[in-house]
Amino acid sequence: MTGSPAVQAASTDTGIHAEVQQFYAHQMQLLDRRACEEWAATFTPDGVFAANGLPAPVRGREAIAAAARAAGERLAADGLVHRHWLGMLTVTAAPGGELFARSYALVIQIRLGGTSEIHRSTVCEDRLVRAEDGSLLVLDRRVTRDDLA
Amino acid sequence: MTGSPAVQAASTDTGIHAEVQQFYAHQMQLLDRRACEEWAATFTPDGVFAANGLPAPVRGREAIAAAARAAGERLAADGLVHRHWLGMLTVTAAPGGELFARSYALVIQIRLGGTSEIHRSTVCEDRLVRAEDGSLLVLDRRVTRDDLA
Amino acid sequence: MTGSPAVQAASTDTGIHAEVQQFYAHQMQLLDRRACEEWAATFTPDGVFAANGLPAPVRGREAIAAAARAAGERLAADGLVHRHWLGMLTVTAAPGGELFARSYALVIQIRLGGTSEIHRSTVCEDRLVRAEDGSLLVLDRRVTRDDLA
Repeated sequence: MTGSPAVQAASTDTGIHAEVQQFYAHQMQLLDRRACEEWAATFTPDGVFAANGLPAPVRGREAIAAAARAAGERLAADGLVHRHWLGMLTVTAAPGGELFARSYALVIQIRLGGTSEIHRSTVCEDRLVRAEDGSLLVLDRRVTRDDLA
Repeated sequence: MTGSPAVQAASTDTGIHAEVQQFYAHQMQLLDRRACEEWAATFTPDGVFAANGLPAPVRGREAIAAAARAAGERLAADGLVHRHWLGMLTVTAAPGGELFARSYALVIQIRLGGTSEIHRSTVCEDRLVRAEDGSLLVLDRRVTRDDLA
Repeated sequence: MTGSPAVQAASTDTGIHAEVQQFYAHQMQLLDRRACEEWAATFTPDGVFAANGLPAPVRGREAIAAAARAAGERLAADGLVHRHWLGMLTVTAAPGGELFARSYALVIQIRLGGTSEIHRSTVCEDRLVRAEDGSLLVLDRRVTRDDLA
C-alpha cells in the first residue's frame, strides 16, 4: 500500500464502504431471486424490517422470510419482476461497533412481455452488526418511501 | 495485503475510485436533503458548477448554496422530491494532483402521493482537488443533459 | 493497512469487487460514446456476447465492434441516446483463476429534446479473465432481459 497517510486512512474507510456495497448487492440478489430463507439470514435472528409503507415492522428471520415469500408470490401471480437497486451509500461508525448505513433504494418493476418502470424510490437506513465470523448482518432496517415522506 | 503486484496496484487505484464514490454519495445526500451550506462546502471556495441546462455557470460557495436553496424551494412548492444517483464512475489522475471524474447522473423525481420517474439523465465531469485535511472538493463541475446533447 | 484480520480479509475481496466496478464503468462509457473498437477490446479476442434478446451469440472482437456500431447508428438515426448502468454487482472466484460477475444492468433511453425512461432491465453474467498485463477482459457475457425471463 503506497500513498500519503491521508490516502491510506481514506482507503481503510473505503474498504468498509465497499464491503457494505458488496453485502447489499448479495442481499438484494437473494431477495429478487426469491431465495427467501437466505435473504432472511442476512438479518440478525431478531432483526427488524420497518417501512412507512408497511402496517407494522416485521421482526425476526422467520417473519422476514415469510413476508418476502408472500411478496414474491404476489409478483409472480401478477406477471411482474422486481429488481432492487441500492446506491448513494454512506457508512458511518456507530456506538458499540455498529455501522450506520444510509442509502437510496429503487425498486424497478418489469412486466413480463411489457415495460420497465420505477416502482418505488426510497431511503434505506440500516444498523449493521457483525456475525461471529465477521460477516455483516442487518440488525434494524428502516425504509422510507419518498412518495409518502 | 496479499496478491500479485498487479492486484495490489489495482487495489491502490480502486481505493481512490471508492473514495470518490463515497464522496459523491455524501454530497448527493446533502443536496437532496437540502443541506445547502454543507452541499456548497463540498466545492472549493471558488468552485464552479456549470451545466448545459443552466443559463450561466454558478461560481463560488455562496452562489452554489443559493442555487440549491432556490431549486429546493421550487420542488417543495410543487410537491416533488429529487434523488440524485451518480454511477458508472471513472477516475483518472490529472496534472497538478487533480483527479478527473466522469460519471453518469440520474435525477429521480418523486411526486408526493404519486409516481416516480427519471427526470434527467446527464453526464457529470468533475475536476476534484484535495483540501488541506486531505478530503475531496469539487473545483469544477460540468453537467451535460443527455436530452440536450 | 490497519484493522482486525477479518476486516483485512474483507478488504482484499472488496479490492477485486471495486476493480470490477471500475472496469464496468469504463467499459459502459466506451459503449455509450460509441468507441466501438475500444469497447470490443474489453472482450477477449474470441469473447462471446450472448443475450436472450439477440437471435444468436456474437463472437469475437470484430463482430462485437460491428454489432455496437450498427446499434449506435440505429440510435443516432432515431434521435436516441443510451446510457448503460450496471449495479448490484457480486463477484466470485471461479475455477482456473476466472472471476464470475453477476450484476443488474439498466439501459436508460433518452430522446433528444424529449424524456428519459428505462428501456431495459437485465441481468448480466460475465466470466472475466486477466490479460497478460493484469487488466480484466470479458471472456463470456450472458445478458438476460427481465421482461423475457
